[in-house]
Amino acid sequence: MSWSGWGDPAKARELPEGVRALLRDLLGVRAPAEPAATLESVRLPPVALPAPLLGALAGVVGAGHVLTGHEARVRHTRGKSTPDLLRMRAGDGSAAPDAVVLPGSHEEVAELLRLCSRERVAVVPFGGGTSVVGGLAAARAGFAGVIALDLGRLDRLRSVDEESMTAEFEPGVRAPDAERLLAARGLTLGHFPQSFEYATLGGFAAARSSGQASAGYGRFDDMVVGLTLATPAGTLELGRAPRSAAGPDLRQLVLGSEGAFGVITALRLRVRRAPAERRYEGWRFASFAEGAAAVRALAQEGPLPTVLRLSDETETMIGLAGPDTIGSATPRGAKGSGGSGGCLLIAGYEGAGAGERQAGATAVLARMGGRALGPEPGLTWEHGRFAAPYLRDSLLAAGATVETLETAGFWSNLPRLYGAVRLALLGALGAPLVMCHISHVYETGASLYFTVVTPQDADPVARWERAKAAVNAAIVAAGGTISHHHGVGRDHRDAYGAEIGPVGAGILRAVKAELDPAGILNPGVLVPGG
Amino acid sequence: MSWSGWGDPAKARELPEGVRALLRDLLGVRAPAEPAATLESVRLPPVALPAPLLGALAGVVGAGHVLTGHEARVRHTRGKSTPDLLRMRAGDGSAAPDAVVLPGSHEEVAELLRLCSRERVAVVPFGGGTSVVGGLAAARAGFAGVIALDLGRLDRLRSVDEESMTAEFEPGVRAPDAERLLAARGLTLGHFPQSFEYATLGGFAAARSSGQASAGYGRFDDMVVGLTLATPAGTLELGRAPRSAAGPDLRQLVLGSEGAFGVITALRLRVRRAPAERRYEGWRFASFAEGAAAVRALAQEGPLPTVLRLSDETETMIGLAGPDTIGSATPRGAKGSGGSGGCLLIAGYEGAGAGERQAGATAVLARMGGRALGPEPGLTWEHGRFAAPYLRDSLLAAGATVETLETAGFWSNLPRLYGAVRLALLGALGAPLVMCHISHVYETGASLYFTVVTPQDADPVARWERAKAAVNAAIVAAGGTISHHHGVGRDHRDAYGAEIGPVGAGILRAVKAELDPAGILNPGVLVPGG
Repeated sequence: MSWSGWGDPAKARELPEGVRALLRDLLGVRAPAEPAATLESVRLPPVALPAPLLGALAGVVGAGHVLTGHEARVRHTRGKSTPDLLRMRAGDGSAAPDAVVLPGSHEEVAELLRLCSRERVAVVPFGGGTSVVGGLAAARAGFAGVIALDLGRLDRLRSVDEESMTAEFEPGVRAPDAERLLAARGLTLGHFPQSFEYATLGGFAAARSSGQASAGYGRFDDMVVGLTLATPAGTLELGRAPRSAAGPDLRQLVLGSEGAFGVITALRLRVRRAPAERRYEGWRFASFAEGAAAVRALAQEGPLPTVLRLSDETETMIGLAGPDTIGSATPRGAKGSGGSGGCLLIAGYEGAGAGERQAGATAVLARMGGRALGPEPGLTWEHGRFAAPYLRDSLLAAGATVETLETAGFWSNLPRLYGAVRLALLGALGAPLVMCHISHVYETGASLYFTVVTPQDADPVARWERAKAAVNAAIVAAGGTISHHHGVGRDHRDAYGAEIGPVGAGILRAVKAELDPAGILNPGVLVPGG
Repeated sequence: MSWSGWGDPAKARELPEGVRALLRDLLGVRAPAEPAATLESVRLPPVALPAPLLGALAGVVGAGHVLTGHEARVRHTRGKSTPDLLRMRAGDGSAAPDAVVLPGSHEEVAELLRLCSRERVAVVPFGGGTSVVGGLAAARAGFAGVIALDLGRLDRLRSVDEESMTAEFEPGVRAPDAERLLAARGLTLGHFPQSFEYATLGGFAAARSSGQASAGYGRFDDMVVGLTLATPAGTLELGRAPRSAAGPDLRQLVLGSEGAFGVITALRLRVRRAPAERRYEGWRFASFAEGAAAVRALAQEGPLPTVLRLSDETETMIGLAGPDTIGSATPRGAKGSGGSGGCLLIAGYEGAGAGERQAGATAVLARMGGRALGPEPGLTWEHGRFAAPYLRDSLLAAGATVETLETAGFWSNLPRLYGAVRLALLGALGAPLVMCHISHVYETGASLYFTVVTPQDADPVARWERAKAAVNAAIVAAGGTISHHHGVGRDHRDAYGAEIGPVGAGILRAVKAELDPAGILNPGVLVPGG
């Protein structure tokens, strides 16, 4: 993983001329950004933890599993939001942990939490490091230091129960490894978010991830049927049945807790038979509103495709501008798109009953005014589904700021939410390029996912943070949730507080105080006023 | 509602001779029970609340909405478990509230909670009064008195959003009224638990109800997309989107909180188009294990019927014994059952795509060894689906104890759970009649619902409570959840504590202390050690 960008640096790609022209002519991007700092030149604060404390940490996990070297610290600094990358490119390593600690078992995690509680060391649980909401930068004030608790050694598939169709994993398993381990038995999780190549199962659970095939496989929180959470107050084990009436569903309190309540050390996940085939296809609708009515019909009347994604007019149009995409896995409609204009919808079908669902959904989409474009746009989308973060690096280098943000709401409120977010972005950024798609649908509502491109000025981080604040306020005011699948982190914490109100925030603080009385777990993240 | 039994006394029915013979010959029930006490003769404790406090309550809700009369108190004493009914039949009103208070708005509920917190008055939220787990009998110790907070006046459908397919209800709406109000718009909730005729929407939410059509419509907690909770600490409003990654799903902390954290004063519920037709049919399998494999195949591979229910050999056989049922809505197989032996499965199909789902499920059931019995067993089940609680009253009068209990687990653990519960009942009760069915299925597991019949001895409550304690311990030891849809109440509280462990119990106590610092809300219910 690139320390200052996304993914395998070997996969970095030049911007196609079409995109360069678009940046120049449409957005007025004139000059490339300053070259990124080298890893060696990143400025880190000195290690704050005293040697005896580092020794105590090594006493728990072994000396080889406490890293204080420059590269290890740089690689555990921040996540992968655009402000994170801009800061890293500028050589700003001020948020680096003092040490990276790699436990090898639940017991070692539990012992580390006790030790760090006693010694007031802040602990940032670290999976794939792909947070885009500031979920990995701890508040240092009041602590002896900060460690990144890297779960990479907890990387095993522990057991598979094919009768119950569940698999028990350790939290540090990366998604591609989980799929590979399951594929050997003909199974799949079916969880394919854009962070797929690097994110871990524990991170998916802690941040309530949702993947591109959520219509068919559900969100990650739907897949978690059991979990183990190590907390400073002890271990919590949950999940004796798929569902229960035995009180509140405490699993749903751990899911989305972003490392602020404890460290997930085991997950029991629902699995499915791996599909024999996957079919993706494109449809065109005259407008975003017409397309939204069609995906709503599928969500409410069925049948649901496995993948369902509708781009608005701008995202559809930009997809046509060149051989590559700007947005996050934006469908490219250049070939087989059946002409310009309107909105592109991608539908995918896999798993049991795929043929029947395709037939049923095809009838609904046609009835709602869709025009079938055949498999080509679907294949193009599939080919590029994890490419957008790589493209972002190229855009950042070229002098543009590109970032994504998202919300969700009930169907009747989506037009208001869509308008409010766009208006806030236009107000804050002048004339940015704003694209949107619907990629997660429910009977009662859906998510809206925005991609924004704007030229970099002298302080692109500050400029984006102003825009982001305006959008957060707009989402709260328009009645949406502050995140559908990115999470809260630090970036959404105040808006989240407004969303759940003082009573909701009080609940989170009370749970945090119960499980983490010393407040060492991911301080500053998630808990409003915490 | 009968004060000492179930439902409309006019619907009470004589036991058919076949059932009488079964009680006599199979179970050795010799003498009918003592006649039930009259309402007037029920022994109540004096009203503990002083007049000024009653006046203060009346100051909030109006004098006409604070009831201290004998009948009102009797009718709010306990719920509808068999021990509850046995105690009421014996004239034991010791658990009666001092007063029944009927608020007319969210604001009145909030004001009552402030008043009762200040004056240390225990508050038992009361919907339909159908708890079967001791959810309505507050611990009095340390309180100035106990009020039943009857939500019957909060009985409105506030609004319907047909685009989002949601409806906003007040909590005191009874299920049949909710269906009637929705039917006027061609809509339905699709929630039909056995308590349907009397239970309220607020009760369904507070206790995580699950209905007979859960395979098609989901559990009640699946239907709740938004809610308002009045607590002594203030009001909590949740639900800006169907799903979110903005932190833990706090709705799932309120669902199942059984009045211990606050009082639900509004619910936004997902609704569906009312189905044009409902088709129910019967199937026969050679054994419970073969039938379970078939319902598992439907749950894991699909398609799922709307109603799916598999009786074990005993429940199937007893269903054949006469023209009426003993178990809870036990399917009667006398007509159209295709001979004796084996296990009866009821499948129902309704709503969009019912025909396709029926065709698909029929293929799976036939492949898994089922023999189709046609619609007759399904119609018989439908006819009697809410009858079991009425029959229980007749059985109690005839000298038998009949009670139900339930659990859930992952598929691979169900045989162990099934055996453990049966063994515990046999050990505690000698030779009871124990019937079981699977009526709620998930991809990874299912519920087991048991009906037990045993003769009454001199102290049938004590005898049952010994058996119940043995079953609770067996469920915990065998890895099941202590309740799939009845809830925790007082009867499952200790077992629930064992299920979630000390860290889980600590979370509940912390949330309770935050929202209800005076501890007035349903004291003794739900919270282990609380």
